[in-house]
Amino acid sequence: MTENGSTALATALAYYRAWSSHDFELAMTYVAEDIVCQAPAGQLVGAQAFREFMGPFAQIVNGTTLIGGFGDERIAMLMYDADTVPVRDAPGAECLTVVDGKISHMRIIFDRLPFAAAREAEAAE
Amino acid sequence: MTENGSTALATALAYYRAWSSHDFELAMTYVAEDIVCQAPAGQLVGAQAFREFMGPFAQIVNGTTLIGGFGDERIAMLMYDADTVPVRDAPGAECLTVVDGKISHMRIIFDRLPFAAAREAEAAE
Repeated sequence: MTENGSTALATALAYYRAWSSHDFELAMTYVAEDIVCQAPAGQLVGAQAFREFMGPFAQIVNGTTLIGGFGDERIAMLMYDADTVPVRDAPGAECLTVVDGKISHMRIIFDRLPFAAAREAEAAE
Repeated sequence: MTENGSTALATALAYYRAWSSHDFELAMTYVAEDIVCQAPAGQLVGAQAFREFMGPFAQIVNGTTLIGGFGDERIAMLMYDADTVPVRDAPGAECLTVVDGKISHMRIIFDRLPFAAAREAEAAE
């Protein structure tokens, strides 16, 4: 990783560490107002839409473990394990574009299937 | 990325380019006999189990686009878009450990939900 690259990764890691330790307001300080986030359910535009997607997820996280993190001048990639209330094994991967210390684009991949199954099981109770 | 790091990424990319261009046998030449793969449905141990998981997926791929790829001395991370027969938008992320030019460990993340929905829709026809 280049020295510049570490800046993108540093922002990505600061964001990750904040939400995963339940300081979601701190996490949002690393998110650009005009963020575009491609999530499994579709595209989210703007910090408010992103907050409504990521905030509830951050609340159900028991803990996370970083699997890997890399970056170059503008882009960082993270992969992590997440232990959540409904799904104990819920890993995620993110590819983040960082501009002026703020995350302007995020591609996030995770498996929605166990979350859907947990919702169905809860509804059936 | 260090010069050594490019070796891990080069192996990861060679593997990716082979399966995504439907040369799955070439792809398997980059996979260690004792690979351990953590996939959404669980852990796969050994090249044969890996082949039975990844081979059928490679067959239903229409095309892929690399979103990002990074690596260090031992580890590479890839994220890609995949257009598949049942699911047009099926991105994936991989964290690969490369030892002596072979992938010895792979963590792969993708969203199984649209694949399950496509199977259900097909079964209902």
